[in-house]
Amino acid sequence: MNRRKFLSRTVLLTGALTLNPFDLFGKKYDERLNFKGKKAKNIIFMISDGMSNGTLSMANLYSKNILGKETHWMNLYLENKVSRALMDTASASSIVTDSAAASSSFGSGFRVNNGSLNVGINGEHYLPIWQKFKKKGKKAGCVTTVTITHATPAGFCINSAKRSAEPDIAEMYGEFGFDFMMGGGDEFFNPEKRTDKKDVYAAYQKRGYQILKNRSDLKNIDKNKPVLGVFNTGALPYTIDRNNTPNLQHMPTLAEMAKAAIEHMKDNKEGFVLQIEAGKVDWAAHANDVSALLHDQLAFDEAIKVAMAFAEKDKNTLVIITTDHGNANPGTIYGADATKNFNSIAHYKCTNEYLLNNLHADFNIQQVKDWIAENNQISVYDDEAKRILNFYNGIEKDEEGLYNYKKLPYRAFSEIQKKHNSVGWISMDHSSDYVELAIYGPGSEFLQPFVKNTDLHYLMLKAAEVENNF
Amino acid sequence: MNRRKFLSRTVLLTGALTLNPFDLFGKKYDERLNFKGKKAKNIIFMISDGMSNGTLSMANLYSKNILGKETHWMNLYLENKVSRALMDTASASSIVTDSAAASSSFGSGFRVNNGSLNVGINGEHYLPIWQKFKKKGKKAGCVTTVTITHATPAGFCINSAKRSAEPDIAEMYGEFGFDFMMGGGDEFFNPEKRTDKKDVYAAYQKRGYQILKNRSDLKNIDKNKPVLGVFNTGALPYTIDRNNTPNLQHMPTLAEMAKAAIEHMKDNKEGFVLQIEAGKVDWAAHANDVSALLHDQLAFDEAIKVAMAFAEKDKNTLVIITTDHGNANPGTIYGADATKNFNSIAHYKCTNEYLLNNLHADFNIQQVKDWIAENNQISVYDDEAKRILNFYNGIEKDEEGLYNYKKLPYRAFSEIQKKHNSVGWISMDHSSDYVELAIYGPGSEFLQPFVKNTDLHYLMLKAAEVENNF
Repeated sequence: MNRRKFLSRTVLLTGALTLNPFDLFGKKYDERLNFKGKKAKNIIFMISDGMSNGTLSMANLYSKNILGKETHWMNLYLENKVSRALMDTASASSIVTDSAAASSSFGSGFRVNNGSLNVGINGEHYLPIWQKFKKKGKKAGCVTTVTITHATPAGFCINSAKRSAEPDIAEMYGEFGFDFMMGGGDEFFNPEKRTDKKDVYAAYQKRGYQILKNRSDLKNIDKNKPVLGVFNTGALPYTIDRNNTPNLQHMPTLAEMAKAAIEHMKDNKEGFVLQIEAGKVDWAAHANDVSALLHDQLAFDEAIKVAMAFAEKDKNTLVIITTDHGNANPGTIYGADATKNFNSIAHYKCTNEYLLNNLHADFNIQQVKDWIAENNQISVYDDEAKRILNFYNGIEKDEEGLYNYKKLPYRAFSEIQKKHNSVGWISMDHSSDYVELAIYGPGSEFLQPFVKNTDLHYLMLKAAEVENNF
Repeated sequence: MNRRKFLSRTVLLTGALTLNPFDLFGKKYDERLNFKGKKAKNIIFMISDGMSNGTLSMANLYSKNILGKETHWMNLYLENKVSRALMDTASASSIVTDSAAASSSFGSGFRVNNGSLNVGINGEHYLPIWQKFKKKGKKAGCVTTVTITHATPAGFCINSAKRSAEPDIAEMYGEFGFDFMMGGGDEFFNPEKRTDKKDVYAAYQKRGYQILKNRSDLKNIDKNKPVLGVFNTGALPYTIDRNNTPNLQHMPTLAEMAKAAIEHMKDNKEGFVLQIEAGKVDWAAHANDVSALLHDQLAFDEAIKVAMAFAEKDKNTLVIITTDHGNANPGTIYGADATKNFNSIAHYKCTNEYLLNNLHADFNIQQVKDWIAENNQISVYDDEAKRILNFYNGIEKDEEGLYNYKKLPYRAFSEIQKKHNSVGWISMDHSSDYVELAIYGPGSEFLQPFVKNTDLHYLMLKAAEVENNF
């Protein structure tokens, strides 16, 4: 019996309504074979910062259950378009990396200590990969939802012994002439906000840069000038809050920034390299803030759509889609109502950040309960509301959470939510988990199934046929 | 410049001591291509029950840091021997499956409700996959570290509306004539321990089975008789406790059972099918018991070695290596001492189960501290020791943890350990995470990058060229 007969008989006889075996066996054509031996003219490196396996899984479950469709990331697998690997994310100083060492591993090909940007364990300065590609005539840029001077973009662009040197990093990008840098971080460019009162924007303008400060500016980009786009003092807002707050919508989405970056650099004769970072997926995990996490992961997924639409048409573009490390290992927990509870996250109107920032010490218990009910559609107990209020009255402190500048009770609140949404977290910090990695296009043939983060540095050079002789 | 020159120059110029780019690019030969179009005579299906991505990652980190080598599982990736996929593990009733519905998805090709064994949502009885293969002349068996009547082996063998029907399941295996069933569960076979006083062993003997009750019996297996091996009342002991306790060593390891099963069935003309389950990886996750978890995962890894040694020699064997669902999403958490803390697990002399079972209500605080120090090499505070004692004096209760029959304070103790070993857990139950799946041998060509658990049912039939016309 031939395969087709075998399969149709299988379908008939099993009555397999939940599974069409053709999905499993039908796809003979592997798109990856298209690119064998081809050179990558362009590279798009996409990082959902701090994305545990559970974040990827839950974003897809949310997309399927609530939006009725698979994510673009999972569709790349369902359509057999990419190569996958598991990636070990350790740094030189720890099995659990920070974002600076993680980005440096991709950026330099070496593991450095946590906190360093392309500065080795003995002080070596490794030439960052976007500088390598600039030397070969490619345009190079980064777009992110956090400050453009943050560890992940910086790790592809510059050297700094300390990731915290964001005011210096703000100046460096212009000195090296990067072509398209976009995100938050006005505090590091604006003379009124910098401690040294230096006007970094003016320095960029002097170098011929076009400065964008508003989403609408994306429509009027001059292709002949390098671009610096800075849309907020610190990071950009979380996706769900931006979408629900008209006065935050003057800031672009990650997908919009990605599209503008590609559009700006795609006609360069020697090609371009672009990093796209969903930086606040990491921040959401640090805050155990589930609606922030899922909606920012889905915004990253929209950026995947943009990158892939370009790459599939272009056919000369390597697209790397991954994270730099796990964070908080979130997951939906078993129980009779696990699915219903998880799906209830669709009722959340805002992030926990927004909810907790707009809760005040002078609220009474009923007001706290009403505010939570209004935004999460859940009814919390009096003692839970009281506990939350305690953090505003100075009775309790919640010191954890890396980006928790205002000391909001993120952990206490996510523990209350857990009873209603069945989502748990191991901590408010990064994890050692091996992470997911997908690659599309020319160079994907070089991917091995289990890699170190540093391997990607050499894979990019090899895919682009750039010798490592800097 | 040719590739070899390119690469050697890369090595010289980068001085990449931490990375040999040949590791990344050097392997041209893909072993998977060997099997294209070949039929799987034998199938070995390996399940590390309840293995989150973090469990797999931490087992490899432990193996590298403490034992100085990669795990066999990761070596399959490093040597490019297998196909990988991400697997969605949901059941018919929930995005978070239990082990019964999970095993049934593999066993029947259908998603069933949690708790059911190959009984559909409308009461349909699906023919379990090991029965399908038995009908085609193959020998079929299961080995596990929990009761042989537990959900995971049962899901490949029998139909039962309730997974809890272990006394009935004990009888069923013999009725269907399975060829090699081995694990724990004397309570379901032994007339002295069964409520109905039925001598199930005698029934098996009547059917021509050889009954094994001791590890040494594995040396004297009659190849012409089917085998039932039952080595303990309930589940077998955790690996680390077994290895450190001489009077537990009359029970075989998972690798030893796997080897005996293969040896027993491998000469059957029509081939064999074997399930190998590390059932207590799941139990360890339910107890947030890290040394139990890592050492049982490594024992599973030794069974991978056995299965692969056979399959690589045999060349007609499909090996599937996976889990049925995540559990507790453990991970090592970021911090200055993360590596040192994680590595300190190597000093643990026993499981938390053993430690807590041997701690008694009449201990004083110093005795609790000494007992923990003796077994974990950590110094806990007086108030921590006092809190643990509270559970023994009835002052506090720790009701969570699925297999926590004795109500031991697993969670409270793992929270104390966390400060010393940097390992966190999201809960004491299963998670919705997509999980890791690796396949070796004939049929691996059919694997798509993102699958449903049910897909594996059809993949096995297809690989073995068995029509689904039962």
